[in-house]
Amino acid sequence: MTTQQLTEQIRKKKSFLCIGLDVDLNKIPQHLLQEEDPIFAFNKAIIDATHQLCVAYKPNTAFYEAYGLKGWKSLEKTIQYLNANYPEIFTIADAKRGDIGNTSSMYAKAFFEDLGFDSVTVAPYMGRDSVEPFLAFHDKHTIMLALTSNAGAFDFQTLKVNNKELYKEVLEVSKTYKNSRNLMYVVGATKATFLADIRKIVPDSFLLVPGVGAQGGNLQDVCKYGLNKHVGLLINSSRGIIYASNQTDFAQAAANKANELQQEMEVILNSQS
Amino acid sequence: MTTQQLTEQIRKKKSFLCIGLDVDLNKIPQHLLQEEDPIFAFNKAIIDATHQLCVAYKPNTAFYEAYGLKGWKSLEKTIQYLNANYPEIFTIADAKRGDIGNTSSMYAKAFFEDLGFDSVTVAPYMGRDSVEPFLAFHDKHTIMLALTSNAGAFDFQTLKVNNKELYKEVLEVSKTYKNSRNLMYVVGATKATFLADIRKIVPDSFLLVPGVGAQGGNLQDVCKYGLNKHVGLLINSSRGIIYASNQTDFAQAAANKANELQQEMEVILNSQS
Repeated sequence: MTTQQLTEQIRKKKSFLCIGLDVDLNKIPQHLLQEEDPIFAFNKAIIDATHQLCVAYKPNTAFYEAYGLKGWKSLEKTIQYLNANYPEIFTIADAKRGDIGNTSSMYAKAFFEDLGFDSVTVAPYMGRDSVEPFLAFHDKHTIMLALTSNAGAFDFQTLKVNNKELYKEVLEVSKTYKNSRNLMYVVGATKATFLADIRKIVPDSFLLVPGVGAQGGNLQDVCKYGLNKHVGLLINSSRGIIYASNQTDFAQAAANKANELQQEMEVILNSQS
Repeated sequence: MTTQQLTEQIRKKKSFLCIGLDVDLNKIPQHLLQEEDPIFAFNKAIIDATHQLCVAYKPNTAFYEAYGLKGWKSLEKTIQYLNANYPEIFTIADAKRGDIGNTSSMYAKAFFEDLGFDSVTVAPYMGRDSVEPFLAFHDKHTIMLALTSNAGAFDFQTLKVNNKELYKEVLEVSKTYKNSRNLMYVVGATKATFLADIRKIVPDSFLLVPGVGAQGGNLQDVCKYGLNKHVGLLINSSRGIIYASNQTDFAQAAANKANELQQEMEVILNSQS
């Protein structure tokens, strides 16, 4: 998928919502545990109920790996279901991978070719040759961690290097990578005011923004500083949507929460144009 | 496994060799492709032939994920085989994970509890709360990336922050993490002279050193600057050992290569005592 197609989907749905599919068997409605594949059954119901309100889904691979082979199978079925039924949806493997060149190539192949995701999140610490293998895939997107939403972000990401914060150095250096046009960035909503500076460095890139909702980030602030002329934002919400109810009405409850965010986004998009 | 037990194993075997199980179906002997599980068949033969010459095995998870469900199954079988048959061996899941707290907890559970690895590699970029969930496991070890063996290491790891290189800041800050006694560090052999400075910061920690062999690192240099009184080094070699031959003699050829390194290590250990 191209970023142009992503922007077109956003304009059509009046939403730049990404729903995080972080499935924890302890939190899903307990009647689903009778299903052959409870994780997939949960995801399918959430997706069917919310796909018109969002433009992207983001399974965090940790939640699937935690269930071993069964979890990996659930992840495969989820991405296959999305690609078969809702091909307009932008899919994100939130994997935060990164390794030396030949190993990053293996990860890129796994997520882009075998699983068929549109994008994957990567960690920047190992530098150029750990990221470029991901960037080599045509019409696939590599979402680098820049400034994350957690407290530990201040351990290293905001330290000064070359007279600027490390996350800004990451943004600037990444622009010199081969095929850098395929880059997007993770910027936590809990640090919305940082977005003004970030937009000076990467004015045209899409930013994936976690941390709205459960982690305390504010949608209005993120949009104030982060929107660009192509919209350029994907706002992720996971727990706030998918665990809105743990009863049989969970899918409808999730849709209601997603609808609230979509409505807010529609107002913001209308006021922008 | 405790680090004391690891040191005892090293003294007994006169080896601090770690063998990287980075299995690529294009590189293994082609007769193995007739096996039901070629990856596991390859690993089992390599392990059976080399377990007396090394103290650790390190599967890089990328190579398993690249084969989807089948690959994940091969990884499970490999770690189960190691734990059942060679429980004295130190096992490393080279996964380079790291995420916000509740998500890192999922990864830690997956690798330590479900799969039963002794250790896992983690990336430091997201800071304290992305690492501490791994450190909470008793007698399990968290191997943080400090200074990696690839060219991209110079993109960010060696930039100056607080008047020292970022990787040194990572080392120092990590020592303040809760249960930091469970930390080890990745330091690439291709940067052996950096080890003198690193030992000033983490004199007692085990260092996992990739990059000897295929990537050009030198064992003598690494030992000169990196050994401590508990040995404190695990030297990893992957391709140089496991792909020594792609014929039916592959396991013996791997053992011969491992034996060469073990012999070098024995000389070094004898000269130390």
